[in-house]
Amino acid sequence: MSVIFKGKKPSRRAFMKGALATSAGALSTGAALAAGEKVITEVQPWNSELGDGVDVMPYGKPSEFEEHVKRRTVEWLTADPVSSINFTPLHELDGIITPNGLAFERHHGGTAHIDPKEHRLMINGLVDRQLVFTMEDLMRFPRENHVYFLECAANSGMEWRGAQLNGCQFTHGMIHNVMYTGVKLRTLLEEAGVKPSGKWLLAEGADASGMTRSIPMEKALDDCLVAFKMNGEALRPEQGYPVRLVVPGWEGNMWVKWLRRLEVGDQPWHHREETSKYTDLLENGKARRFTWEMDAKSVITNPSPQAPLTHKKGPTVITGLAWSGRGTIPRVDVTIDGGITWHQARISGPSLDKSMHRFYFEFDWDGKPLLLQSRAHDSTGYVQPTKDQLRKHRGVNSIYHNNGIQTWAIDEEGKAENVEIS
Amino acid sequence: MSVIFKGKKPSRRAFMKGALATSAGALSTGAALAAGEKVITEVQPWNSELGDGVDVMPYGKPSEFEEHVKRRTVEWLTADPVSSINFTPLHELDGIITPNGLAFERHHGGTAHIDPKEHRLMINGLVDRQLVFTMEDLMRFPRENHVYFLECAANSGMEWRGAQLNGCQFTHGMIHNVMYTGVKLRTLLEEAGVKPSGKWLLAEGADASGMTRSIPMEKALDDCLVAFKMNGEALRPEQGYPVRLVVPGWEGNMWVKWLRRLEVGDQPWHHREETSKYTDLLENGKARRFTWEMDAKSVITNPSPQAPLTHKKGPTVITGLAWSGRGTIPRVDVTIDGGITWHQARISGPSLDKSMHRFYFEFDWDGKPLLLQSRAHDSTGYVQPTKDQLRKHRGVNSIYHNNGIQTWAIDEEGKAENVEIS
Repeated sequence: MSVIFKGKKPSRRAFMKGALATSAGALSTGAALAAGEKVITEVQPWNSELGDGVDVMPYGKPSEFEEHVKRRTVEWLTADPVSSINFTPLHELDGIITPNGLAFERHHGGTAHIDPKEHRLMINGLVDRQLVFTMEDLMRFPRENHVYFLECAANSGMEWRGAQLNGCQFTHGMIHNVMYTGVKLRTLLEEAGVKPSGKWLLAEGADASGMTRSIPMEKALDDCLVAFKMNGEALRPEQGYPVRLVVPGWEGNMWVKWLRRLEVGDQPWHHREETSKYTDLLENGKARRFTWEMDAKSVITNPSPQAPLTHKKGPTVITGLAWSGRGTIPRVDVTIDGGITWHQARISGPSLDKSMHRFYFEFDWDGKPLLLQSRAHDSTGYVQPTKDQLRKHRGVNSIYHNNGIQTWAIDEEGKAENVEIS
Repeated sequence: MSVIFKGKKPSRRAFMKGALATSAGALSTGAALAAGEKVITEVQPWNSELGDGVDVMPYGKPSEFEEHVKRRTVEWLTADPVSSINFTPLHELDGIITPNGLAFERHHGGTAHIDPKEHRLMINGLVDRQLVFTMEDLMRFPRENHVYFLECAANSGMEWRGAQLNGCQFTHGMIHNVMYTGVKLRTLLEEAGVKPSGKWLLAEGADASGMTRSIPMEKALDDCLVAFKMNGEALRPEQGYPVRLVVPGWEGNMWVKWLRRLEVGDQPWHHREETSKYTDLLENGKARRFTWEMDAKSVITNPSPQAPLTHKKGPTVITGLAWSGRGTIPRVDVTIDGGITWHQARISGPSLDKSMHRFYFEFDWDGKPLLLQSRAHDSTGYVQPTKDQLRKHRGVNSIYHNNGIQTWAIDEEGKAENVEIS
């Protein structure tokens, strides 16, 4: 609020002189030019010089001023970046769509770069007709479009033993939400003809890790998609180009990328990624397995450690995301005092099944420290638990399925920190 | 359908031998390995070599196999690419979201590259308080999220005098559909306090063209947004970074980009872009002006001249887009015989106000020539007209607001051509 423009042209200069802004009302936003404030007397270059032509960027990219908005890795998290994760910068986004360039990545053998002409999808096992599809074959089946969230089971997994990572991108960024276009998995399975004994499905990727997961036939025949587009365009390589499985509401690891084979069987395969990994070790030494569904969860994306408040008091917007693997989010509560008082947040944007929901809570900040939390309610009536409630049931040996309430402490400077309160 | 994989590992090879696919049923998709067909005996590189790590691409981009998917210009269309248009490749997309990198561009003085820290938005004129907002100021007002289409008034404009351009990208690609996040224009105008005499609003851009348009106050106070995000992330430079006006359902040229000033007045300004341009010259020499609303329209995106059918007969998917500046699209009809018989298409994906809708029509192609058309019905009951119906009312001197029914002729080879039938 310290700069005002003065144009070069007489007509513009005359206008600008007459238009010195007066101070705003209650919001204190929009302001007058005060004594001693900087005045730009030159016309800005973007107002006086022609910009780029329409032939400069056949495929566009973000502004140079947005270079800090990117997926990030946590170096100590994995031994090698080829089997690792990067994180969606949730604190830089708004609305419910994750742009493809910022959708978090998780792969177990690196991003495969596949020529779609050479790619095939096979259906085999307990079927009447074993089939091999080209990508062109897949395009001849009826398609559907759905916005779904994809969350890694390990999202927030580093928080089981206490507040660890100082940034919403790192605590909650193993998630994205895009519109998928694909063929219903059911359609392809019906084309092959599942035998009555076929109760399970193995999905296998064509990448170097040969990722495999077992999926119960009931889910396979329900709402799964064999998808080739995300947000309108072809899947990105790191998201399984040219084709991936979409398993709505279930943990991301089951959404097998670079999908090359679907085998129908009569029992689960108990492969590595559903035994050694993606199970939850409990206090009693037993492990929960086949914990597919993602429970209702929410997080305040702004303010958060990477996106502090930059004003000192007054009108303030809190915003965040909520989602559930079991349906929609009819309600989100927000507290600014660590749970003493809860306020119902405003949800803006489409409320879609198994999709992210965007919520806002606006309040007049008195400039004092805050303890921010959000709490999601899903359409089944389930309410997001505290981290301590989760630990009571599950202990602290888990990595996966931490959907506990997140707390950000805001200090008088507006800085935010990952904390826990009990 | 001419390639099948054979793995290197014994266990895999054994499986693959047993899994030679048998031919599919009615769809003829998914097929057996026939005599003489090519067999890949080597494991593909993406299955045997580790791929890229998660640190390779902090901001992702499409597969190298998708390089043909891009915005394109028509060189003869304008004298200079700095005041010109490029086109969304609709025939390469699916669903309803346009990815930001492929959203068509139209600018009148080139793409401005603006430092958001230096950018200001002023409200002046017939208001109680003249205001200047920084970008940080704007972030302190309540936000909303909406998916809206933005269509240039000139979209399909080259078709007024007959079928001209051989590609859906060029006939209908001056449109995109994204989720916008922003502050309601009404909120900012209320902050400034519009005087009772303030009946019109002038929106002005900070680019070299100083784009200006007059907007009636009724629309400004209804559903317009001052938007800073598209599909979750910051606006792209070519779409008005850091802030643009969103005028839902109205012609794209009013959605002033690089928005720097909003002036409240008591009458329209009659500036260049609403007099010499963006008016429709009728047969009688008079011009229609202030033709803001975009009428209901649809187009078949696949097959189309740039995306022919690649099979010779059998199960075939027709897909396209429909939209209306007046509401939703409850129904789209498709004909494959040039209008003798119409079939109701299937709409898949969210049906949102003033947003694109995706439709599909699946049929069993007999391999004979086709005349494909689609016809949108909007929620007001309006039905998309033929081009001849439009010409009867409006003559052929127009450039803007051609929402006539598009025809693609498909020949026996599957090739598609832009034609007109009457």
